[in-house]
Amino acid sequence: MAKEFIDDENDVHVWAATEDEVVENAREQLDAAGVETDDSEIRERIAIIPSPRRIKSGTDGVFDERRRRGGERTTQEVVESGMDVGLGTGSTTAWAVAEIGRLLREGELEGVRGVATSLQSHELAKEVGIPLVNLDEVTELDVTIDGADQYSEEEPTVIKGGGGAHAREKIIDAMADRLVIATDEEKATDPLDYPVPVEVMPDAREVVAEDLRAVGGDPELRMAERKDGPLFTANGNLVIDCDFGGLDDTSGTARDIEQIPGVLEHGIFLDMVDDVYLGTEDDVDTVSF
Amino acid sequence: MAKEFIDDENDVHVWAATEDEVVENAREQLDAAGVETDDSEIRERIAIIPSPRRIKSGTDGVFDERRRRGGERTTQEVVESGMDVGLGTGSTTAWAVAEIGRLLREGELEGVRGVATSLQSHELAKEVGIPLVNLDEVTELDVTIDGADQYSEEEPTVIKGGGGAHAREKIIDAMADRLVIATDEEKATDPLDYPVPVEVMPDAREVVAEDLRAVGGDPELRMAERKDGPLFTANGNLVIDCDFGGLDDTSGTARDIEQIPGVLEHGIFLDMVDDVYLGTEDDVDTVSF
Repeated sequence: MAKEFIDDENDVHVWAATEDEVVENAREQLDAAGVETDDSEIRERIAIIPSPRRIKSGTDGVFDERRRRGGERTTQEVVESGMDVGLGTGSTTAWAVAEIGRLLREGELEGVRGVATSLQSHELAKEVGIPLVNLDEVTELDVTIDGADQYSEEEPTVIKGGGGAHAREKIIDAMADRLVIATDEEKATDPLDYPVPVEVMPDAREVVAEDLRAVGGDPELRMAERKDGPLFTANGNLVIDCDFGGLDDTSGTARDIEQIPGVLEHGIFLDMVDDVYLGTEDDVDTVSF
Repeated sequence: MAKEFIDDENDVHVWAATEDEVVENAREQLDAAGVETDDSEIRERIAIIPSPRRIKSGTDGVFDERRRRGGERTTQEVVESGMDVGLGTGSTTAWAVAEIGRLLREGELEGVRGVATSLQSHELAKEVGIPLVNLDEVTELDVTIDGADQYSEEEPTVIKGGGGAHAREKIIDAMADRLVIATDEEKATDPLDYPVPVEVMPDAREVVAEDLRAVGGDPELRMAERKDGPLFTANGNLVIDCDFGGLDDTSGTARDIEQIPGVLEHGIFLDMVDDVYLGTEDDVDTVSF
Protein backbone atom coordinates (compact mmCIF):
# COMPACT_ATOMS: atom_id res chain seq x y z
CA MET A 1 0.00 0.00 0.00
CA ALA A 2 1.09 3.55 -0.61
CA LYS A 3 -0.13 7.06 0.10
CA GLU A 4 -1.19 9.82 -2.28
CA PHE A 5 -1.89 13.55 -2.18
CA ILE A 6 -3.71 15.29 -5.01
CA ASP A 7 -4.30 19.04 -5.32
CA ASP A 8 -5.70 19.57 -8.81
CA GLU A 9 -6.04 23.33 -8.37
CA ASN A 10 -2.30 23.75 -7.95
CA ASP A 11 -1.44 20.82 -10.24
CA VAL A 12 0.23 18.84 -7.45
CA HIS A 13 0.10 15.03 -7.47
CA VAL A 14 2.41 13.22 -5.07
CA TRP A 15 2.58 9.61 -3.97
CA ALA A 16 5.06 7.57 -1.97
CA ALA A 17 5.39 4.55 0.25
CA THR A 18 4.82 6.45 3.50
CA GLU A 19 2.65 9.34 4.64
CA ASP A 20 5.71 11.26 5.83
CA GLU A 21 7.32 11.11 2.42
CA VAL A 22 4.13 12.31 0.79
CA VAL A 23 3.87 15.25 3.20
CA GLU A 24 7.48 16.22 2.60
CA ASN A 25 7.19 16.06 -1.18
CA ALA A 26 3.83 17.81 -1.29
CA ARG A 27 5.10 20.60 0.96
CA GLU A 28 8.07 21.16 -1.38
CA GLN A 29 5.83 21.45 -4.42
CA LEU A 30 3.24 23.62 -2.71
CA ASP A 31 6.00 25.91 -1.40
CA ALA A 32 7.42 26.18 -4.92
CA ALA A 33 3.96 27.09 -6.22
CA GLY A 34 3.71 29.75 -3.49
CA VAL A 35 0.77 28.02 -1.81
CA GLU A 36 0.43 28.47 1.94
CA THR A 37 -0.72 25.37 3.78
CA ASP A 38 0.36 23.43 6.84
CA ASP A 39 1.25 19.77 7.21
CA SER A 40 -1.93 18.83 9.04
CA GLU A 41 -4.01 20.02 6.08
CA ILE A 42 -1.92 17.88 3.76
CA ARG A 43 -2.23 14.87 6.06
CA GLU A 44 -6.01 15.17 6.12
CA ARG A 45 -6.21 14.89 2.36
CA ILE A 46 -3.88 11.90 1.99
CA ALA A 47 -5.52 8.89 0.36
CA ILE A 48 -4.54 5.23 0.49
CA ILE A 49 -3.59 3.70 -2.82
CA PRO A 50 -2.32 0.26 -3.74
CA SER A 51 1.38 -0.09 -4.02
CA PRO A 52 2.46 -0.50 -7.64
CA ARG A 53 4.89 -3.38 -7.76
CA ARG A 54 7.88 -1.07 -7.88
CA ILE A 55 6.55 2.26 -6.70
CA LYS A 56 8.91 5.17 -7.20
CA SER A 57 8.79 7.64 -4.37
CA GLY A 58 8.30 11.27 -5.24
CA THR A 59 6.41 12.98 -7.98
CA ASP A 60 8.09 11.69 -11.09
CA GLY A 61 7.62 7.98 -10.48
CA VAL A 62 5.25 6.35 -12.87
CA PHE A 63 2.40 4.11 -12.12
CA ASP A 64 0.25 2.81 -14.86
CA GLU A 65 -2.73 5.17 -15.19
CA ARG A 66 -4.51 2.65 -17.40
CA ARG A 67 -4.63 0.12 -14.61
CA ARG A 68 -5.83 2.71 -12.16
CA ARG A 69 -8.55 3.84 -14.55
CA GLY A 70 -9.60 0.26 -15.24
CA GLY A 71 -9.73 -0.73 -11.59
CA GLU A 72 -11.54 2.35 -10.31
CA ARG A 73 -14.09 2.28 -13.12
CA THR A 74 -14.80 -1.41 -12.47
CA THR A 75 -15.76 -0.62 -8.90
CA GLN A 76 -17.80 2.42 -9.88
CA GLU A 77 -19.81 0.42 -12.40
CA VAL A 78 -20.30 -2.93 -10.66
CA VAL A 79 -20.28 -2.44 -6.89
CA GLU A 80 -23.50 -1.30 -5.20
CA SER A 81 -24.44 -0.66 -1.59
CA GLY A 82 -25.26 -3.78 0.39
CA MET A 83 -23.26 -6.10 -1.81
CA ASP A 84 -20.97 -8.91 -0.69
CA VAL A 85 -17.94 -8.60 -2.92
CA GLY A 86 -15.09 -11.00 -3.65
CA LEU A 87 -11.83 -9.03 -3.55
CA GLY A 88 -9.31 -10.42 -5.98
CA THR A 89 -5.60 -10.00 -6.43
CA GLY A 90 -3.72 -8.19 -9.18
CA SER A 91 -2.35 -4.80 -10.10
CA THR A 92 -5.59 -3.54 -11.68
CA THR A 93 -7.83 -5.22 -9.11
CA ALA A 94 -5.92 -3.48 -6.32
CA TRP A 95 -7.17 -0.16 -7.67
CA ALA A 96 -10.71 -1.53 -7.66
CA VAL A 97 -10.36 -2.57 -4.02
CA ALA A 98 -8.89 0.80 -3.02
CA GLU A 99 -11.80 2.49 -4.79
CA ILE A 100 -14.36 0.47 -2.80
CA GLY A 101 -12.63 1.73 0.34
CA ARG A 102 -12.73 5.33 -0.85
CA LEU A 103 -16.42 5.16 -1.76
CA LEU A 104 -17.23 3.62 1.63
CA ARG A 105 -15.24 6.28 3.48
CA GLU A 106 -16.94 9.04 1.52
CA GLY A 107 -20.40 7.59 2.07
CA GLU A 108 -21.11 6.87 -1.58
CA LEU A 109 -21.31 3.16 -0.78
CA GLU A 110 -22.81 1.56 2.33
CA GLY A 111 -23.01 -1.94 3.72
CA VAL A 112 -20.46 -3.47 1.38
CA ARG A 113 -18.60 -6.47 2.78
CA GLY A 114 -15.57 -8.10 1.24
CA VAL A 115 -14.19 -11.65 1.06
CA ALA A 116 -10.49 -11.64 0.20
CA THR A 117 -8.93 -14.11 -2.24
CA SER A 118 -5.45 -13.63 -0.82
CA LEU A 119 -3.39 -12.23 2.01
CA GLN A 120 -2.55 -9.22 -0.20
CA SER A 121 -6.17 -8.31 -0.89
CA HIS A 122 -7.02 -9.01 2.75
CA GLU A 123 -4.35 -6.53 3.92
CA LEU A 124 -5.33 -3.92 1.33
CA ALA A 125 -9.00 -4.22 2.26
CA LYS A 126 -8.19 -3.76 5.94
CA GLU A 127 -6.09 -0.71 5.20
CA VAL A 128 -8.69 0.98 2.98
CA GLY A 129 -11.47 0.13 5.43
CA ILE A 130 -13.61 -2.54 3.78
CA PRO A 131 -15.37 -4.73 6.39
CA LEU A 132 -14.21 -8.29 5.80
CA VAL A 133 -16.07 -11.55 6.26
CA ASN A 134 -14.55 -15.00 6.13
CA LEU A 135 -15.06 -17.28 3.18
CA ASP A 136 -16.86 -19.78 5.39
CA GLU A 137 -19.47 -17.23 6.49
CA VAL A 138 -21.05 -16.81 3.06
CA THR A 139 -21.96 -19.21 0.29
CA GLU A 140 -22.79 -16.61 -2.33
CA LEU A 141 -21.32 -13.30 -3.42
CA ASP A 142 -22.93 -10.58 -5.52
CA VAL A 143 -19.81 -9.91 -7.52
CA THR A 144 -16.13 -10.80 -7.50
CA ILE A 145 -13.56 -8.48 -9.04
CA ASP A 146 -10.36 -10.34 -9.83
CA GLY A 147 -7.34 -10.19 -12.10
CA ALA A 148 -6.14 -12.80 -14.57
CA ASP A 149 -2.89 -13.92 -16.10
CA GLN A 150 -4.57 -14.20 -19.46
CA TYR A 151 -8.08 -13.63 -20.75
CA SER A 152 -9.87 -14.38 -23.98
CA GLU A 153 -12.11 -12.22 -26.12
CA GLU A 154 -13.74 -15.32 -27.58
CA GLU A 155 -14.70 -17.37 -24.53
CA PRO A 156 -15.63 -16.54 -20.90
CA THR A 157 -12.53 -18.24 -19.55
CA VAL A 158 -9.34 -16.95 -17.94
CA ILE A 159 -6.10 -18.52 -16.81
CA LYS A 160 -5.00 -17.67 -13.28
CA GLY A 161 -2.47 -18.94 -10.76
CA GLY A 162 0.67 -17.00 -11.59
CA GLY A 163 0.44 -15.90 -7.97
CA GLY A 164 0.00 -19.46 -6.73
CA ALA A 165 -3.35 -18.74 -5.07
CA HIS A 166 -5.73 -20.08 -7.69
CA ALA A 167 -7.33 -22.74 -5.48
CA ARG A 168 -8.82 -20.13 -3.16
CA GLU A 169 -9.37 -17.66 -6.00
CA LYS A 170 -11.40 -20.19 -7.95
CA ILE A 171 -13.70 -20.81 -5.00
CA ILE A 172 -14.38 -17.09 -4.56
CA ASP A 173 -14.67 -16.38 -8.27
CA ALA A 174 -17.07 -19.30 -8.74
CA MET A 175 -19.37 -18.37 -5.86
CA ALA A 176 -20.08 -14.89 -7.25
CA ASP A 177 -23.24 -14.18 -9.23
CA ARG A 178 -21.05 -12.07 -11.48
CA LEU A 179 -17.33 -12.39 -12.10
CA VAL A 180 -15.66 -9.26 -13.41
CA ILE A 181 -12.04 -9.50 -14.52
CA ALA A 182 -10.19 -6.19 -14.14
CA THR A 183 -7.04 -6.29 -16.22
CA ASP A 184 -5.24 -4.69 -19.15
CA GLU A 185 -5.44 -5.41 -22.84
CA GLU A 186 -1.97 -6.91 -23.08
CA LYS A 187 -3.33 -9.99 -21.33
CA ALA A 188 -5.74 -10.92 -24.14
CA THR A 189 -4.84 -13.98 -26.24
CA ASP A 190 -6.85 -16.34 -28.42
CA PRO A 191 -6.54 -19.18 -28.02
CA LEU A 192 -5.35 -19.01 -24.42
CA ASP A 193 -1.78 -20.25 -24.16
CA TYR A 194 -0.51 -19.21 -20.72
CA PRO A 195 1.13 -22.21 -19.00
CA VAL A 196 -1.59 -23.63 -16.76
CA PRO A 197 -0.66 -23.48 -13.05
CA VAL A 198 -1.54 -26.80 -11.44
CA GLU A 199 -1.48 -27.16 -7.64
CA VAL A 200 -0.37 -30.66 -6.65
CA MET A 201 0.24 -32.74 -3.55
CA PRO A 202 4.00 -32.58 -2.91
CA ASP A 203 4.65 -36.33 -3.03
CA ALA A 204 2.66 -36.65 -6.25
CA ARG A 205 4.70 -34.13 -8.25
CA GLU A 206 6.55 -36.72 -10.34
CA VAL A 207 3.58 -38.85 -11.27
CA VAL A 208 1.38 -35.81 -11.90
CA ALA A 209 4.06 -34.44 -14.24
CA GLU A 210 3.97 -37.75 -16.14
CA ASP A 211 0.19 -37.62 -16.34
CA LEU A 212 0.29 -34.01 -17.57
CA ARG A 213 2.67 -35.04 -20.35
CA ALA A 214 0.25 -37.80 -21.27
CA VAL A 215 -2.52 -35.23 -21.88
CA GLY A 216 -0.29 -33.02 -24.03
CA GLY A 217 1.33 -30.66 -21.54
CA ASP A 218 4.91 -29.64 -20.86
CA PRO A 219 5.13 -29.47 -17.04
CA GLU A 220 7.68 -27.53 -15.03
CA LEU A 221 7.87 -27.40 -11.23
CA ARG A 222 7.71 -23.80 -10.09
CA MET A 223 10.75 -22.83 -8.06
CA ALA A 224 10.69 -20.30 -5.26
CA GLU A 225 12.62 -17.09 -5.16
CA ARG A 226 14.07 -15.95 -1.86
CA LYS A 227 13.93 -19.56 -0.64
CA ASP A 228 15.81 -22.62 -1.86
CA GLY A 229 13.86 -25.26 -3.68
CA PRO A 230 10.30 -25.31 -4.96
CA LEU A 231 7.59 -22.80 -4.16
CA PHE A 232 4.97 -23.92 -1.65
CA THR A 233 1.43 -22.57 -1.74
CA ALA A 234 -0.52 -21.29 1.26
CA ASN A 235 -1.99 -24.81 1.40
CA GLY A 236 1.41 -26.47 1.66
CA ASN A 237 1.38 -27.82 -1.88
CA LEU A 238 3.53 -27.35 -5.00
CA VAL A 239 2.76 -25.66 -8.31
CA ILE A 240 3.53 -27.20 -11.68
CA ASP A 241 3.29 -24.74 -14.58
CA CYS A 242 2.15 -26.77 -17.54
CA ASP A 243 2.52 -25.43 -21.06
CA PHE A 244 -0.06 -26.84 -23.47
CA GLY A 245 0.72 -24.42 -26.29
CA GLY A 246 -2.51 -22.90 -27.59
CA LEU A 247 -5.54 -24.29 -25.75
CA ASP A 248 -7.75 -25.18 -28.69
CA ASP A 249 -10.06 -27.18 -26.43
CA THR A 250 -10.01 -25.34 -23.13
CA SER A 251 -12.81 -27.39 -21.66
CA GLY A 252 -11.28 -30.70 -22.70
CA THR A 253 -7.90 -29.78 -21.23
CA ALA A 254 -9.53 -28.62 -18.00
CA ARG A 255 -11.34 -31.95 -17.65
CA ASP A 256 -8.17 -33.90 -18.47
CA ILE A 257 -6.27 -32.16 -15.70
CA GLU A 258 -9.08 -32.50 -13.15
CA GLN A 259 -9.05 -36.28 -13.52
CA ILE A 260 -5.38 -36.65 -12.55
CA PRO A 261 -5.01 -37.99 -8.98
CA GLY A 262 -2.81 -35.68 -6.91
CA VAL A 263 -4.01 -32.54 -8.72
CA LEU A 264 -5.76 -30.22 -6.28
CA GLU A 265 -6.70 -27.35 -8.57
CA HIS A 266 -5.72 -25.97 -11.95
CA GLY A 267 -5.70 -22.42 -13.22
CA ILE A 268 -8.24 -22.71 -16.03
CA PHE A 269 -11.30 -20.76 -14.83
CA LEU A 270 -13.68 -22.28 -17.31
CA ASP A 271 -16.86 -20.48 -18.43
CA MET A 272 -16.85 -18.31 -15.33
CA VAL A 273 -16.29 -14.78 -16.63
CA ASP A 274 -19.16 -12.33 -17.06
CA ASP A 275 -17.23 -9.16 -17.96
CA VAL A 276 -13.69 -8.03 -18.56
CA TYR A 277 -12.85 -4.39 -17.73
CA LEU A 278 -9.77 -2.96 -19.38
CA GLY A 279 -8.17 0.37 -18.69
CA THR A 280 -7.02 1.92 -21.94
CA GLU A 281 -4.97 5.04 -22.70
CA ASP A 282 -7.86 7.41 -21.99
CA ASP A 283 -10.92 5.28 -21.29
CA VAL A 284 -12.12 1.86 -20.15
CA ASP A 285 -13.17 -0.92 -22.52
CA THR A 286 -15.35 -3.84 -21.59
CA VAL A 287 -15.84 -7.31 -23.01
CA SER A 288 -19.06 -8.99 -21.88
CA PHE A 289 -20.17 -12.59 -22.21
CA MET B 1 0.39 -55.09 14.54
CA ALA B 2 0.18 -58.23 16.64
CA LYS B 3 2.12 -61.43 17.21
CA GLU B 4 1.14 -65.01 16.50
CA PHE B 5 2.33 -68.50 17.39
CA ILE B 6 1.10 -71.55 15.50
CA ASP B 7 1.89 -75.16 16.33
CA ASP B 8 -0.40 -77.23 14.12
CA GLU B 9 0.95 -80.54 15.41
CA ASN B 10 -0.28 -79.79 18.91
CA ASP B 11 -3.27 -77.77 17.73
CA VAL B 12 -2.03 -74.60 19.38
CA HIS B 13 -2.81 -71.23 17.79
CA VAL B 14 -2.17 -68.17 19.91
CA TRP B 15 -2.09 -64.48 19.06
CA ALA B 16 -1.89 -61.32 21.13
CA ALA B 17 -0.81 -57.72 21.02
CA THR B 18 2.68 -58.39 22.40
CA GLU B 19 5.27 -61.12 22.06
CA ASP B 20 5.33 -61.64 25.83
CA GLU B 21 1.61 -62.31 25.94
CA VAL B 22 1.92 -64.81 23.11
CA VAL B 23 4.75 -66.61 24.87
CA GLU B 24 2.81 -66.77 28.10
CA ASN B 25 -0.37 -68.07 26.46
CA ALA B 26 1.46 -70.53 24.23
CA ARG B 27 3.40 -71.88 27.20
CA GLU B 28 0.16 -72.46 29.11
CA GLN B 29 -1.40 -74.41 26.23
CA LEU B 30 1.73 -76.39 25.48
CA ASP B 31 2.08 -77.25 29.15
CA ALA B 32 -1.54 -78.38 29.24
CA ALA B 33 -0.87 -80.55 26.18
CA GLY B 34 2.15 -82.02 27.95
CA VAL B 35 4.59 -80.65 25.36
CA GLU B 36 8.05 -79.80 26.58
CA THR B 37 9.53 -76.65 25.02
CA ASP B 38 11.25 -73.55 26.28
CA ASP B 39 10.40 -69.89 25.78
CA SER B 40 13.22 -69.19 23.33
CA GLU B 41 11.86 -71.87 20.97
CA ILE B 42 8.43 -70.26 21.12
CA ARG B 43 9.91 -66.83 20.51
CA GLU B 44 11.73 -68.01 17.40
CA ARG B 45 8.51 -69.20 15.82
CA ILE B 46 6.48 -66.07 16.52
CA ALA B 47 5.17 -64.34 13.38
CA ILE B 48 4.03 -60.77 12.86
CA ILE B 49 0.41 -60.36 11.92
CA PRO B 50 -1.73 -57.29 11.38
CA SER B 51 -3.69 -56.15 14.33
CA PRO B 52 -7.40 -56.88 13.86
CA ARG B 53 -9.26 -53.75 14.81
CA ARG B 54 -10.18 -55.08 18.22
CA ILE B 55 -7.81 -57.95 18.75
CA LYS B 56 -8.66 -60.17 21.67
CA SER B 57 -5.63 -61.40 23.49
CA GLY B 58 -5.33 -65.07 24.09
CA THR B 59 -6.52 -68.07 22.20
CA ASP B 60 -10.24 -67.61 22.07
CA GLY B 61 -10.34 -64.18 20.43
CA VAL B 62 -11.66 -64.20 16.93
CA PHE B 63 -10.19 -62.66 13.89
CA ASP B 64 -11.88 -63.06 10.61
CA GLU B 65 -10.29 -66.00 8.82
CA ARG B 66 -11.95 -64.96 5.56
CA ARG B 67 -10.05 -61.70 5.52
CA ARG B 68 -6.81 -63.43 6.30
CA ARG B 69 -7.39 -65.96 3.54
CA GLY B 70 -8.33 -63.22 1.05
CA GLY B 71 -5.35 -61.04 1.86
CA GLU B 72 -2.74 -63.78 1.91
CA ARG B 73 -4.01 -65.33 -1.31
CA THR B 74 -3.98 -61.96 -3.05
CA THR B 75 -0.29 -61.58 -2.34
CA GLN B 76 0.48 -65.16 -3.31
CA GLU B 77 -1.24 -64.74 -6.66
CA VAL B 78 -0.28 -61.21 -7.71
CA VAL B 79 3.07 -60.27 -6.17
CA GLU B 80 6.24 -61.44 -7.94
CA SER B 81 9.91 -60.94 -7.24
CA GLY B 82 11.28 -57.57 -8.40
CA MET B 83 7.92 -55.80 -8.30
CA ASP B 84 7.24 -52.32 -6.97
CA VAL B 85 4.01 -52.72 -5.03
CA GLY B 86 1.54 -50.15 -3.72
CA LEU B 87 0.63 -51.14 -0.16
CA GLY B 88 -2.93 -50.18 0.66
CA THR B 89 -4.89 -49.85 3.84
CA GLY B 90 -7.70 -52.03 5.15
CA SER B 91 -8.33 -55.09 7.25
CA THR B 92 -7.95 -57.56 4.36
CA THR B 93 -5.09 -55.66 2.72
CA ALA B 94 -3.17 -55.75 6.00
CA TRP B 95 -3.01 -59.54 5.68
CA ALA B 96 -1.70 -59.14 2.13
CA VAL B 97 1.04 -56.80 3.33
CA ALA B 98 2.00 -59.13 6.17
CA GLU B 99 2.19 -61.99 3.67
CA ILE B 100 4.61 -60.03 1.43
CA GLY B 101 6.80 -59.61 4.48
CA ARG B 102 6.64 -63.31 5.30
CA LEU B 103 7.49 -64.38 1.74
CA LEU B 104 10.43 -61.94 1.68
CA ARG B 105 11.72 -63.19 5.02
CA GLU B 106 11.42 -66.79 3.90
CA GLY B 107 13.14 -66.08 0.58
CA GLU B 108 10.14 -66.94 -1.58
CA LEU B 109 10.08 -63.34 -2.86
CA GLU B 110 13.06 -61.13 -3.62
CA GLY B 111 13.56 -57.51 -4.61
CA VAL B 112 10.02 -56.38 -3.80
CA ARG B 113 9.72 -52.71 -2.78
CA GLY B 114 6.62 -51.10 -1.33
CA VAL B 115 5.05 -47.65 -1.52
CA ALA B 116 2.65 -47.11 1.38
CA THR B 117 -0.72 -45.42 0.97
CA SER B 118 -0.96 -44.51 4.63
CA LEU B 119 0.89 -44.27 7.90
CA GLN B 120 -0.70 -47.58 8.93
CA SER B 121 0.55 -49.52 5.91
CA HIS B 122 3.90 -47.75 6.23
CA GLU B 123 4.25 -48.94 9.82
CA LEU B 124 3.07 -52.45 9.05
CA ALA B 125 5.47 -52.70 6.09
CA LYS B 126 8.37 -51.59 8.27
CA GLU B 127 7.48 -54.12 10.93
CA VAL B 128 7.14 -57.07 8.55
CA GLY B 129 10.30 -56.04 6.70
CA ILE B 130 9.23 -54.76 3.28
CA PRO B 131 11.77 -52.23 1.89
CA LEU B 132 9.91 -48.97 1.39
CA VAL B 133 10.40 -46.29 -1.26
CA ASN B 134 8.81 -42.87 -1.26
CA LEU B 135 5.98 -42.01 -3.57
CA ASP B 136 8.13 -39.37 -5.26
CA GLU B 137 10.83 -41.88 -6.19
CA VAL B 138 8.67 -43.87 -8.60
CA THR B 139 6.13 -42.92 -11.26
CA GLU B 140 4.86 -46.41 -11.94
CA LEU B 141 4.01 -49.46 -9.85
CA ASP B 142 3.57 -53.04 -10.98
CA VAL B 143 0.60 -53.64 -8.74
CA THR B 144 -1.25 -51.97 -5.90
CA ILE B 145 -3.22 -54.03 -3.38
CA ASP B 146 -5.76 -51.90 -1.58
CA GLY B 147 -9.02 -52.14 0.26
CA ALA B 148 -12.30 -50.43 -0.53
CA ASP B 149 -15.35 -49.21 1.32
CA GLN B 150 -17.54 -50.56 -1.42
CA TYR B 151 -16.96 -52.38 -4.68
CA SER B 152 -19.10 -53.28 -7.64
CA GLU B 153 -19.43 -56.53 -9.54
CA GLU B 154 -20.67 -54.63 -12.59
CA GLU B 155 -18.06 -51.90 -13.09
CA PRO B 156 -14.34 -51.57 -12.30
CA THR B 157 -14.96 -48.80 -9.77
CA VAL B 158 -14.72 -48.65 -5.99
CA ILE B 159 -15.56 -46.07 -3.36
CA LYS B 160 -12.81 -45.31 -0.86
CA GLY B 161 -12.10 -42.69 1.75
CA GLY B 162 -13.77 -44.01 4.86
CA GLY B 163 -10.30 -43.72 6.36
CA GLY B 164 -9.85 -40.17 5.10
CA ALA B 165 -6.73 -41.00 3.07
CA HIS B 166 -8.24 -41.28 -0.41
CA ALA B 167 -6.22 -38.45 -1.97
CA ARG B 168 -2.95 -40.30 -1.49
CA GLU B 169 -4.58 -43.69 -2.05
CA LYS B 170 -5.93 -42.58 -5.42
CA ILE B 171 -2.49 -41.49 -6.59
CA ILE B 172 -0.95 -44.83 -5.64
CA ASP B 173 -3.85 -46.90 -6.95
CA ALA B 174 -3.85 -44.99 -10.26
CA MET B 175 -0.13 -45.31 -10.90
CA ALA B 176 -0.21 -49.12 -10.71
CA ASP B 177 -0.34 -51.20 -13.86
CA ARG B 178 -2.76 -53.42 -12.00
CA LEU B 179 -5.05 -52.50 -9.13
CA VAL B 180 -6.21 -55.43 -7.01
CA ILE B 181 -8.84 -54.77 -4.39
CA ALA B 182 -8.60 -57.16 -1.45
CA THR B 183 -11.84 -57.10 0.50
CA ASP B 184 -14.79 -59.17 1.57
CA GLU B 185 -18.04 -59.93 -0.14
CA GLU B 186 -20.16 -57.85 2.23
CA LYS B 187 -18.76 -54.76 0.52
CA ALA B 188 -20.32 -55.49 -2.88
CA THR B 189 -23.23 -53.29 -3.94
CA ASP B 190 -24.72 -52.42 -7.32
CA PRO B 191 -25.18 -49.63 -7.96
CA LEU B 192 -22.56 -48.23 -5.59
CA ASP B 193 -24.25 -46.19 -2.87
CA TYR B 194 -21.61 -45.58 -0.20
CA PRO B 195 -21.58 -41.87 0.74
CA VAL B 196 -18.72 -40.41 -1.32
CA PRO B 197 -15.92 -39.00 0.85
CA VAL B 198 -14.90 -35.61 -0.54
CA GLU B 199 -11.74 -33.89 0.72
CA VAL B 200 -12.20 -30.12 0.76
CA MET B 201 -10.27 -26.99 1.62
CA PRO B 202 -11.38 -26.03 5.14
CA ASP B 203 -12.65 -22.54 4.28
CA ALA B 204 -14.60 -23.87 1.32
CA ARG B 205 -16.65 -26.39 3.29
CA GLU B 206 -19.90 -24.39 3.21
CA VAL B 207 -19.84 -23.49 -0.46
CA VAL B 208 -18.70 -26.98 -1.47
CA ALA B 209 -21.60 -28.44 0.53
CA GLU B 210 -23.97 -26.16 -1.43
CA ASP B 211 -22.41 -27.23 -4.72
CA LEU B 212 -22.67 -30.90 -3.77
CA ARG B 213 -26.38 -30.43 -3.04
CA ALA B 214 -26.72 -28.83 -6.47
CA VAL B 215 -25.40 -32.00 -8.13
CA GLY B 216 -27.74 -34.27 -6.17
CA GLY B 217 -25.79 -35.12 -3.05
CA ASP B 218 -26.58 -34.97 0.65
CA PRO B 219 -23.37 -33.70 2.25
CA GLU B 220 -22.33 -34.13 5.86
CA LEU B 221 -19.11 -32.83 7.41
CA ARG B 222 -17.22 -35.71 8.98
CA MET B 223 -16.63 -35.14 12.69
CA ALA B 224 -13.61 -36.42 14.55
CA GLU B 225 -13.63 -38.83 17.43
CA ARG B 226 -11.18 -38.31 20.27
CA LYS B 227 -10.90 -34.63 19.23
CA ASP B 228 -13.51 -31.88 19.32
CA GLY B 229 -14.83 -30.63 16.02
CA PRO B 230 -14.32 -31.88 12.49
CA LEU B 231 -11.83 -34.48 11.37
CA PHE B 232 -8.74 -33.16 9.58
CA THR B 233 -6.92 -35.25 6.98
CA ALA B 234 -3.14 -35.74 6.83
CA ASN B 235 -3.18 -32.86 4.34
CA GLY B 236 -4.88 -30.47 6.77
CA ASN B 237 -8.23 -30.56 4.99
CA LEU B 238 -11.76 -31.62 5.91
CA VAL B 239 -13.88 -34.51 4.68
CA ILE B 240 -17.49 -34.18 3.59
CA ASP B 241 -19.33 -37.49 3.25
CA CYS B 242 -21.80 -36.99 0.47
CA ASP B 243 -24.70 -39.38 0.05
CA PHE B 244 -25.94 -39.56 -3.56
CA GLY B 245 -28.16 -42.59 -2.99
CA GLY B 246 -27.48 -45.17 -5.69
CA LEU B 247 -24.85 -43.95 -8.16
CA ASP B 248 -26.61 -44.73 -11.41
CA ASP B 249 -24.08 -42.66 -13.34
CA THR B 250 -20.82 -43.11 -11.46
CA SER B 251 -18.76 -41.37 -14.11
CA GLY B 252 -21.12 -38.39 -14.35
CA THR B 253 -21.16 -37.93 -10.59
CA ALA B 254 -17.36 -38.18 -10.42
CA ARG B 255 -17.02 -35.46 -13.08
CA ASP B 256 -19.62 -33.27 -11.34
CA ILE B 257 -17.67 -33.41 -8.08
CA GLU B 258 -14.28 -32.80 -9.73
CA GLN B 259 -15.49 -29.54 -11.19
CA ILE B 260 -16.40 -28.01 -7.83
CA PRO B 261 -13.81 -25.43 -6.73
CA GLY B 262 -12.49 -26.25 -3.27
CA VAL B 263 -12.76 -30.00 -3.80
CA LEU B 264 -9.34 -31.63 -3.60
CA GLU B 265 -10.25 -35.27 -4.18
CA HIS B 266 -13.27 -37.52 -4.03
CA GLY B 267 -13.56 -41.17 -3.17
CA ILE B 268 -14.91 -42.51 -6.47
CA PHE B 269 -12.05 -44.55 -7.97
CA LEU B 270 -13.46 -44.64 -11.46
CA ASP B 271 -12.57 -47.39 -13.93
CA MET B 272 -9.41 -48.23 -12.04
CA VAL B 273 -9.98 -51.75 -10.73
CA ASP B 274 -8.48 -54.80 -12.44
CA ASP B 275 -9.40 -57.51 -9.94
CA VAL B 276 -11.26 -57.93 -6.69
CA TYR B 277 -10.08 -60.72 -4.35
CA LEU B 278 -12.58 -61.87 -1.76
CA GLY B 279 -11.97 -64.23 1.09
CA THR B 280 -14.94 -66.56 1.52
CA GLU B 281 -15.81 -69.15 4.15
CA ASP B 282 -13.36 -71.71 2.80
CA ASP B 283 -11.83 -70.26 -0.36
CA VAL B 284 -11.08 -67.05 -2.27
CA ASP B 285 -13.29 -65.64 -5.02
CA THR B 286 -12.16 -63.19 -7.65
CA VAL B 287 -13.96 -60.69 -9.85
CA SER B 288 -11.92 -59.52 -12.83
CA PHE B 289 -12.53 -56.66 -15.24
